[in-house]
Amino acid sequence: MGFLDTIAAKRDGGENSKEQLIELAKGAADKSIPDYQLGAWLMAVYLNGLNPRETADLTLAMADSGERLDLSGIPGPHLDKHSTGGVGDKTTLVVLPILAACGVTMVKMSGRGLGITGGTIDKLESIPGFRTDLTPEEMIDQAKRIGIALSGQTPRLAPADGALYALRDVTGTVASIPLITASILSKKIAGGAETVVLDVKCGSGAFMKTLPEAEALARSLVDTGKLCGLKVSAVITDMDQPLGMAVGNAIEVIEALMVLESKNIQSARLNLTDPLSRFQYLCVELAGHALEVLGLGDRATAKEALKSGRAHEKAIEWFCAQGVDQETIDLDLILVRKEGWNTAKGAIPVMHTGDWGFLKSIDAERVGQAVIKLGGGRTEKGQSIDHRVGVSVISAVGHRVTHNCPVFTVLGVDQKLCKEVASDLQDAFVVTNEPVEPVNPVLKIVH
Amino acid sequence: MGFLDTIAAKRDGGENSKEQLIELAKGAADKSIPDYQLGAWLMAVYLNGLNPRETADLTLAMADSGERLDLSGIPGPHLDKHSTGGVGDKTTLVVLPILAACGVTMVKMSGRGLGITGGTIDKLESIPGFRTDLTPEEMIDQAKRIGIALSGQTPRLAPADGALYALRDVTGTVASIPLITASILSKKIAGGAETVVLDVKCGSGAFMKTLPEAEALARSLVDTGKLCGLKVSAVITDMDQPLGMAVGNAIEVIEALMVLESKNIQSARLNLTDPLSRFQYLCVELAGHALEVLGLGDRATAKEALKSGRAHEKAIEWFCAQGVDQETIDLDLILVRKEGWNTAKGAIPVMHTGDWGFLKSIDAERVGQAVIKLGGGRTEKGQSIDHRVGVSVISAVGHRVTHNCPVFTVLGVDQKLCKEVASDLQDAFVVTNEPVEPVNPVLKIVH
Repeated sequence: MGFLDTIAAKRDGGENSKEQLIELAKGAADKSIPDYQLGAWLMAVYLNGLNPRETADLTLAMADSGERLDLSGIPGPHLDKHSTGGVGDKTTLVVLPILAACGVTMVKMSGRGLGITGGTIDKLESIPGFRTDLTPEEMIDQAKRIGIALSGQTPRLAPADGALYALRDVTGTVASIPLITASILSKKIAGGAETVVLDVKCGSGAFMKTLPEAEALARSLVDTGKLCGLKVSAVITDMDQPLGMAVGNAIEVIEALMVLESKNIQSARLNLTDPLSRFQYLCVELAGHALEVLGLGDRATAKEALKSGRAHEKAIEWFCAQGVDQETIDLDLILVRKEGWNTAKGAIPVMHTGDWGFLKSIDAERVGQAVIKLGGGRTEKGQSIDHRVGVSVISAVGHRVTHNCPVFTVLGVDQKLCKEVASDLQDAFVVTNEPVEPVNPVLKIVH
Repeated sequence: MGFLDTIAAKRDGGENSKEQLIELAKGAADKSIPDYQLGAWLMAVYLNGLNPRETADLTLAMADSGERLDLSGIPGPHLDKHSTGGVGDKTTLVVLPILAACGVTMVKMSGRGLGITGGTIDKLESIPGFRTDLTPEEMIDQAKRIGIALSGQTPRLAPADGALYALRDVTGTVASIPLITASILSKKIAGGAETVVLDVKCGSGAFMKTLPEAEALARSLVDTGKLCGLKVSAVITDMDQPLGMAVGNAIEVIEALMVLESKNIQSARLNLTDPLSRFQYLCVELAGHALEVLGLGDRATAKEALKSGRAHEKAIEWFCAQGVDQETIDLDLILVRKEGWNTAKGAIPVMHTGDWGFLKSIDAERVGQAVIKLGGGRTEKGQSIDHRVGVSVISAVGHRVTHNCPVFTVLGVDQKLCKEVASDLQDAFVVTNEPVEPVNPVLKIVH
């Protein structure tokens, strides 16, 4: 009857003790607490909340429900970066190499995409040969050698999170800030993180639709992280329009490589109405913020790592370390580009058919749904996806568009489906005749 | 994903539609909705409630989740009587024969005891040979023949209630007025009831501890019953002290027979400080109220059925119809008395050891717990019980007690355990030197 007391306390608006939350995480991980009791507890938490102390205790209990990665042997400072997920969010692919090129060791576990939110693991699997199933031992070894390692989640770390997340998904209890907080941070802590930079997405293409919601989540993540002994800060970034010019899998890898290869970065002025420029800017901001947190530099340091080509070299080193063939890497990457973008059989532009004007909004959620419809995303876990397909976003909010100017290109393999998706997207953007202020991708930093 | 919408609506404080509640009851009964989703929904209902329309729709959906008993062939008016359960509540054993003797047909399903609340089925099983597993067909047949039939619950009627009740028990969601309402009334409706008299217990020995709580439940039961097309009223009765002089199983049957056999009822004045007199009074009140509802008489009619011996004859006819051997019935009932009361091996009095005074309170909950400890009740479903043991309550609140006057007698088979229980009960009553007003067992009637 022990867990019934835990449920009853939370049901009645009371607190759960540290011991109760440890029992809960253990029972969720080893299945000794039945799912129906966990389901009832999750709903009680959804409706009555967890206070900061409870959230931190739950986080640590979940982190301790399995193994913990021991990063103590890793040379130099290490950092974990996490995004709450959005449409076209491939920042990890750029930020990790920049930071590794600046002497930071990056050991990161990433997830797969679900719903409109893409997943870094899916994106990287667009590259022929890329292994996403490193063991914890392989990750540490690789991080020691080249300063960067990324893998899919392993059930050995924070198994309570896997169990609770699966239940939240089917009991309508996903959208709970303390539960989201504990889910994110428990995996970071189990993965050995000490310093964490969080990218909290905000807007129609993200889980948090408004700035107050995103701020509440960022505040919970930062406060809970501190209570758990982490050095943690959160950057709230715009997800009201898609991030960058590519939404898909292979095409997002290509976009990341375009940013990593850009050698004229210092001379190019930031253009917030250009999706690629916006994306590049965000990567530098996030990497610069991380360097500041670690006391290793700032945005200029991050820019220099890109400009010098060191970040690009680090990315290639990373891909090769995780199984991509060194001798054929250029060819393979060209193949990725070829398969993923240039020669997609269907490539249907979506035109602005009205008078000239300014892009007032681009509905990120609908672009994400378009990619799912094309086969590039999942509605349920375990579905296979087509890495080649996607939507290319030509312009960002604030850009001036003329009659018959393309706003999107739909990239697919089935011409009929592409046409359907293009038709769906015809009203996924709004053009106005008044000038529109472009949107800085960084909305706020929460310490 | 259909049921997720049902959960989400209730989680967000919205309403569930009739169709959603029908799907829920069906899914609970046939197990097509997983327990963890039902657990989450139950917690959302516990915290956000159900409005009257939803409660009635859920009740009907649960009633329709299995077979419905068709009582249309039964001669004359029929009525169902239900008690929310308490300590020493054996009113069914008296009220059913009284009403049957007055021409009402009584078809009733009863439960087993759990926790401090006893169950009519357990009590009747104290009588050698008594069958409590009548099929629906047997019940209807017997009711047609003798006007009275009582059986344990069958999974064929309202199976959704069985599934939801089991889940509520393990998810901390029992104490929800709309869920209690739907549970009680769905079984009545599935059992063919058209007119229902509810006995809502109130006090330390009942689920509802205070009058406002009991009134809220009575109001919900009556209003929901009416929305479901029932003729229904509720009598709120006192359960702050045990009901009657016997708390146990066999000894409660004996007490019921004592009331049924009482031939001097009209001459005896009501004595509210005597437990047996209080119990007899309540039985007449409940039966009289039921007769009024049906337009077949009043309290005087009920009293007359007792006084004339017709209620007692009806009880014997009933017991025999359900398997008790007619030829040995007197002997058997004497055996019940012998086994259950008179010759219990341990019989330890609990004395008032202070100065003379007035009984201010008797803790019904602790008397119920004492019976569980003796082996006469269950802490978990499916446990076997000892029908012989119990606690005899000598006096009711308001009674004058002197030094070394017994308040309880502990009846058990294990002398050591009896002494322990007697010691537990030593402070389960309070004596004061100011006169105390005796408590009428009928607190309020809700129409």
